[in-house]
Amino acid sequence: MNFKIWMNKKINKVEEYLKSVVKENENPQKLIYEAMNYSLLSGGKRLRPLLLLGAYELFQNNEDAAMPFACAMEMIHTYSLIHDDLPAMDNDDYRRGRLSNHKRFGEAAAILAGDGLLNKAFETGLEAALEHKINIESALKALAEIAGSSGSDGMIGGQVVDMFGHDKISSLEDLKYMYSLKTGAIIKSSVTAGALLGGADEKELRALESYAEKIGLAFQIEDDILDVTGTLEKLGKAAGSDAANDKITYLTFVSIEEAQSTVIKLTEEAIESLDAFGEKAAHLAELARYLTNRDH
Amino acid sequence: MNFKIWMNKKINKVEEYLKSVVKENENPQKLIYEAMNYSLLSGGKRLRPLLLLGAYELFQNNEDAAMPFACAMEMIHTYSLIHDDLPAMDNDDYRRGRLSNHKRFGEAAAILAGDGLLNKAFETGLEAALEHKINIESALKALAEIAGSSGSDGMIGGQVVDMFGHDKISSLEDLKYMYSLKTGAIIKSSVTAGALLGGADEKELRALESYAEKIGLAFQIEDDILDVTGTLEKLGKAAGSDAANDKITYLTFVSIEEAQSTVIKLTEEAIESLDAFGEKAAHLAELARYLTNRDH
Repeated sequence: MNFKIWMNKKINKVEEYLKSVVKENENPQKLIYEAMNYSLLSGGKRLRPLLLLGAYELFQNNEDAAMPFACAMEMIHTYSLIHDDLPAMDNDDYRRGRLSNHKRFGEAAAILAGDGLLNKAFETGLEAALEHKINIESALKALAEIAGSSGSDGMIGGQVVDMFGHDKISSLEDLKYMYSLKTGAIIKSSVTAGALLGGADEKELRALESYAEKIGLAFQIEDDILDVTGTLEKLGKAAGSDAANDKITYLTFVSIEEAQSTVIKLTEEAIESLDAFGEKAAHLAELARYLTNRDH
Repeated sequence: MNFKIWMNKKINKVEEYLKSVVKENENPQKLIYEAMNYSLLSGGKRLRPLLLLGAYELFQNNEDAAMPFACAMEMIHTYSLIHDDLPAMDNDDYRRGRLSNHKRFGEAAAILAGDGLLNKAFETGLEAALEHKINIESALKALAEIAGSSGSDGMIGGQVVDMFGHDKISSLEDLKYMYSLKTGAIIKSSVTAGALLGGADEKELRALESYAEKIGLAFQIEDDILDVTGTLEKLGKAAGSDAANDKITYLTFVSIEEAQSTVIKLTEEAIESLDAFGEKAAHLAELARYLTNRDH
């Protein structure tokens, strides 16, 4: 199947599933459903679900069985954006071209909506595991992988370094460590959780980890490049905001040309990691190219 | 075993386990470990772990197998306190006689520490499930029960009603609905998760649900009573704070005498729900009395 068609089909399925997760109703707590859905259903690339589904499909083709786990990744990603945007954190008024959650619902509701989405990710994954469409041990391993990647030694840890340890980032290695936690960890677990759900063996898992680590870093470097070269339209936020905020980025340490060639190199290496899977991995390979070539 | 001895033994084991969960080290994200431990290891009654262990021990006696799940309940409870204390929420400067998390570490770190503890609860539970000391299906059911109880139709939903729907609470039924979510849900799931981990059948589960619902409500009413009759020493906060904040409580609708007799009645009914378990349930029965008789 053509990559773009594959991708759009998957995105449609993901959107459909996400719409079914948080059911708005007239319970006294209905504000929380509204605030959760406001951010969860506001578009976005749905990258993490695509990675999970792409990895899963190397091994199995029962897409519906993997869908709850794929969407759990998006819930975790979305909650992290809501909390990152809070005044005490990055204090961003806009997200994906709309008011950020706390600007729309107030800080208290935004904190709770974030909590609710993190919690809902595990509710969704655990309920899916109990449906036995996936081997129960594999489902548990995938959920444990996801939980580890989003916690204090994963995404949350990365946000802490970004918020509080930024002035201690004095080398490219320090920066890459922060990136590997803040954005890399859940990109990686999207891929490895998909592989675990599909029943990958150790060797296959290692190959996919390598793929995921490389695209995770390439994605983040591309983000830093786009912040300099991009337009408001492409970014959904003002270009040059990193520089304006004196933010340490990949471009603090290397030239833009060097960063661009690193992105190309990482992307090619990521695709090479997929060699053993042959033609089956065509969508994951295209996904790597798509992710790191976002300005067209 | 004498109840007080049993309780203190359990609390010591819980404290020991909690100390081992978040290991402080010199990683760049170390602030998050410190902020998580600050609140997690600040004492408290450890009620939810006690309930889980007490229910589990009706069926099994391998305490170590249930301990990670018991401590996961405490992590969820602790994260909810950290987030509830935030300026955008209840804006409390003190908790258990110490500075609240955000007063000690700042708002951003407190938000992340709360997120980290919620996440860690699931990390802990999922890792424990993969150790196979508990039947895997039972472990998953227990975790799903816990996740449901802490989410937008459980504890988070209750906090939303408390924060945003307080002026719509116009009857005792409305108030009881809010209490059943805000504090009742994870008290109940502590008991039912313990029972599920132990392998309870449907009938046993229903009996324990009844026990848990009744002590959950009794506990909350007792809290409202103590706010009027208690002292700073017993409460860890100033007495009369609900009245000062114009808060709707159980005493908005009934006299203090009626509330007190309701607590006694609920406690006795909770203990009656344990009848079928005979002598084995002595600790859970004592726990019910202990919880609702907190002013000595």
